Amino acid sequence: MRLPTLNRKHLERHLPILQWSKTYDRETLTSDMAAAVIVTIMLIPQSLAYALLAGLPAEMGLYASILPLVAYAVFGTSRVLAVGPVAVVSLMTAAAVGNLALQGTAEYVVAAITLAFISGLILLVMGVFRLGFLANFLSHPVIAGFITASGVLIATSQMKHLFGIKAEGHTLPQLLGSLFENQHLANPITLFIGLTTTAFLFWVRKGLKPLLLATGMKPRLADIMAKAGPVAAVVVTTLATWIFGLQDKGVRIVGEVPMGLPPLTLPSFDADLWSSLFVSALLISVIGFVESVSVAQTLAAKRRQRIIPDQELIGLGASNIAAAISGGYPVTGGFARSVVNFDAGAETPAAGAFTAVGILLAALLLTPLLYFLPNATLAATIIVAVLSLVDFSILSKTWSYSKVDFTAVASTIALTLGFGVEVGVSVGVILSIGLFLYKTSRPHVAEVGLVPGTQHFRNINRHDVQTAPSMVTLRIDESLYFANARFLEDYIYNRIACDEPIKDVVLMCSAVNEVDMSALESLEAINQRLKDLDIKLHLSEVKGPVMDRLKRSHFLDELSGEVFLSQYDAMVRLTRSDQSEGA
Amino acid sequence: MRLPTLNRKHLERHLPILQWSKTYDRETLTSDMAAAVIVTIMLIPQSLAYALLAGLPAEMGLYASILPLVAYAVFGTSRVLAVGPVAVVSLMTAAAVGNLALQGTAEYVVAAITLAFISGLILLVMGVFRLGFLANFLSHPVIAGFITASGVLIATSQMKHLFGIKAEGHTLPQLLGSLFENQHLANPITLFIGLTTTAFLFWVRKGLKPLLLATGMKPRLADIMAKAGPVAAVVVTTLATWIFGLQDKGVRIVGEVPMGLPPLTLPSFDADLWSSLFVSALLISVIGFVESVSVAQTLAAKRRQRIIPDQELIGLGASNIAAAISGGYPVTGGFARSVVNFDAGAETPAAGAFTAVGILLAALLLTPLLYFLPNATLAATIIVAVLSLVDFSILSKTWSYSKVDFTAVASTIALTLGFGVEVGVSVGVILSIGLFLYKTSRPHVAEVGLVPGTQHFRNINRHDVQTAPSMVTLRIDESLYFANARFLEDYIYNRIACDEPIKDVVLMCSAVNEVDMSALESLEAINQRLKDLDIKLHLSEVKGPVMDRLKRSHFLDELSGEVFLSQYDAMVRLTRSDQSEGA
Repeated sequence: MRLPTLNRKHLERHLPILQWSKTYDRETLTSDMAAAVIVTIMLIPQSLAYALLAGLPAEMGLYASILPLVAYAVFGTSRVLAVGPVAVVSLMTAAAVGNLALQGTAEYVVAAITLAFISGLILLVMGVFRLGFLANFLSHPVIAGFITASGVLIATSQMKHLFGIKAEGHTLPQLLGSLFENQHLANPITLFIGLTTTAFLFWVRKGLKPLLLATGMKPRLADIMAKAGPVAAVVVTTLATWIFGLQDKGVRIVGEVPMGLPPLTLPSFDADLWSSLFVSALLISVIGFVESVSVAQTLAAKRRQRIIPDQELIGLGASNIAAAISGGYPVTGGFARSVVNFDAGAETPAAGAFTAVGILLAALLLTPLLYFLPNATLAATIIVAVLSLVDFSILSKTWSYSKVDFTAVASTIALTLGFGVEVGVSVGVILSIGLFLYKTSRPHVAEVGLVPGTQHFRNINRHDVQTAPSMVTLRIDESLYFANARFLEDYIYNRIACDEPIKDVVLMCSAVNEVDMSALESLEAINQRLKDLDIKLHLSEVKGPVMDRLKRSHFLDELSGEVFLSQYDAMVRLTRSDQSEGA
Repeated sequence: MRLPTLNRKHLERHLPILQWSKTYDRETLTSDMAAAVIVTIMLIPQSLAYALLAGLPAEMGLYASILPLVAYAVFGTSRVLAVGPVAVVSLMTAAAVGNLALQGTAEYVVAAITLAFISGLILLVMGVFRLGFLANFLSHPVIAGFITASGVLIATSQMKHLFGIKAEGHTLPQLLGSLFENQHLANPITLFIGLTTTAFLFWVRKGLKPLLLATGMKPRLADIMAKAGPVAAVVVTTLATWIFGLQDKGVRIVGEVPMGLPPLTLPSFDADLWSSLFVSALLISVIGFVESVSVAQTLAAKRRQRIIPDQELIGLGASNIAAAISGGYPVTGGFARSVVNFDAGAETPAAGAFTAVGILLAALLLTPLLYFLPNATLAATIIVAVLSLVDFSILSKTWSYSKVDFTAVASTIALTLGFGVEVGVSVGVILSIGLFLYKTSRPHVAEVGLVPGTQHFRNINRHDVQTAPSMVTLRIDESLYFANARFLEDYIYNRIACDEPIKDVVLMCSAVNEVDMSALESLEAINQRLKDLDIKLHLSEVKGPVMDRLKRSHFLDELSGEVFLSQYDAMVRLTRSDQSEGA
């Protein structure tokens, strides 16, 4: 009788839909439907715009917002995460695919679909092997810097649509150079549409809701109206283009968008293509996962829910595979739309599935209406959306807190702007790990003494403490491992090379969480060297796990001194034995 | 008046020769000369043999043992390090160059010379920027495993010369497969010479010296005789080949070795060649440096001398540049020859310069005599020399001490044997760093209580300690940084999700050596979450450097609890306030 129960639990863990669907009722349905309507309104122009940013046909943005949402609803653990094309991942897609094929070609589209497929596989594999912890190696400041720099890159890359000119490049110098070179070709009508729309959308974002509330509108409705700003911009500029025939006056438009269901597509299985896309897919997967999980966790915490990061990998993996087989491109959980989904009252992932239905209806019915939509309008939508991602305050925050964090974040920003997203985030991660390793390779070592009236020991340079003349106590503020083993040797040899008649060296190990084989060999060397000089080496406050390990070596047999439970014990015993020897 | 003195000091730091040459006298000269004679005798057959191992003409081994020694004598800080071609670096040279050109071609020779040049530049740059600490990231077990596996590869690669057959490859399966395939072509006379020489050299190494001492010979002379074993083997087998005309019976011989001074050579400056050789040159530089420095430090410690690692980089860099311009190939400090130099009484680097003169005389006068030297003799010399490097006990040592170290060393050995030296050492380094990071990303957290009768706190699961019911004290055994920031959040949220009426959570920070920006954000989140649950968060035993940093953020203002100097203070104060509240 117990086996089926266990199986059900097991199944529920891997198919979260089984869990929440059990208690699904009419009330939940209403909340989810309402949220889905708002998110759909927001998502239609965004999906088109992000496809444009990725260098893909507009309809691929819609396709990426249908099946992937259903897949996430089945496998994802967040109740409110809204999956789909997002700005940073679209930019990374453009960077990855742009190296391999020209925009507008069939190869470009196939490469983007394949990228989604590889990325989905990577996420699934990471999920199955529970490698979600790997995302922890992206430090918060590095992510913040990366997102900010990406926002700047994205906004700059969209400027060309505002001006109605061509501009190429994946780095800030390339984009600016290209814009500057072609600025004389700017189309005044396009520029007018672009700037007006940008200004309008900024105003909608900041000023509309308070205004509507002031007119006595209900907050919920005011919220929906404000969210519909981009839709209004799309409608107005499309109508204007159609009525005045602006497409004949040089205003670039979206043009024909195929009407109908998402097509069934297959990724390419060309080995060369896979190997060229693999690193990009890995970066997109990890960045997408980190962004998505941090949104999901923030929102889950507000409702005291939990998400399971390793299951999230499965959910996002399934979404990307779904994108690859239905004409989409890489997707992940978006920040803005998830917050909107949350605020609009979504209670289960079913809201995502309803959103998918909404976008599907748009793909089936609305696409002919998009013919006259100016690219400049979509560019304005993107610019206004991504500028909220840009936040350089991380630079000043890290500068005042920690120069190491500052170095990592400043390098990430500079390299992302100067050399593109892939270089930026890769170097950011490597640099933050490298700096951490560098710090641990030259640990802080404090010489400590007894704080009078207590049994507590602190740094002799910071506190007024008691010490004994023939005894040196060093507190090593780091685990001992290969990278700092030699440093410790040098430090101790330098410290004892003085005129004082040192008889005992105590290593206070309260901060030593690990002694690896290399460090053990160094300790043996130190013990031997001190023994030759008639100095005893003692340890104190060695932690359980470290002591367990030392007991498995011969070090404790050879140690010239003792291992004391506490540093206070060490001081009492060693100074007492001094006196008795002196007597 | 002071400036010249400072300049002199500065100059002496960068040209150590200025320092030791000041006190150079007749006695030092005699010691150095005597050591040079012994090392020269040892080095002549070894240099030829290692050139053969590197796939290069025999004379390049001699050339690599002339000018590089003089360069090291000028720039190096070790008094006794003997520089020249060594087994592992020769094998790495063969692996690096063998991918680019065929043995026996001019391109192969130029690539080897270029490799020495690039490697010299890398070492010089590392020295100038004081990057010697990077070598610390090669853990002792990884080095031990790498040297052992290289020894096995080298011995196997020389088997072909013992059999007189051809065999190619840079990995154990390739070499064994190739040997097995061609074994029917074995030349019986070559095999006889090879096996007899190998047996003889083993006997010289183990049995000769005791025998000579037993006959009443002076220890010093017995030592020289034993070191001359390879020379005797060279002389006897060369004479035998000449007298019996063995070269016509299929015994491969060294053949014509050009007589004269080392040629003036130039590396290639072809950009493609440089980019293909760069990674190999980097690995050779680092491995050569680590080997060399560890020999130099071991020997320096015995005489209470010191070496300066960053200056050693300059010394080895100069040696490799010297090798590149005088027809040599990559060199470094050798273990066996340095020990011989030390034992023979070398007192200054001048001994190295005298050795260079000895080898130069050999290149000028003795090369015609080497015509009939069988390759099998040289192979036997190499096999006997490298088998002393092979020591698999590192596997059992690390197995019993630490599974993490064992994983790193076992992988290094397996990958070096299976995929060659470059893959082996690269993966070894990456793996040991990765495993360290993984451990720090899931730190040990101990819940602690007061050891009765003391002010000392230990793990409640290991010690019999006192705790207070409403207070949880967690000792985090790791620095808090981006990789474990989320882990800490999860750990604390799980710990407080229990039935106990917890009012205070104390984080005992005695082992927290660092709180980076990511961890600070996690601490802020934890503080906020606990505040919502009406639980106060306290810190205790925060170290000076960490406290300095926290003071620069807003965290301490927002902290719901207090920061206690010692954990004992925290317990006394928090339990007292409990009672007063209860009263």
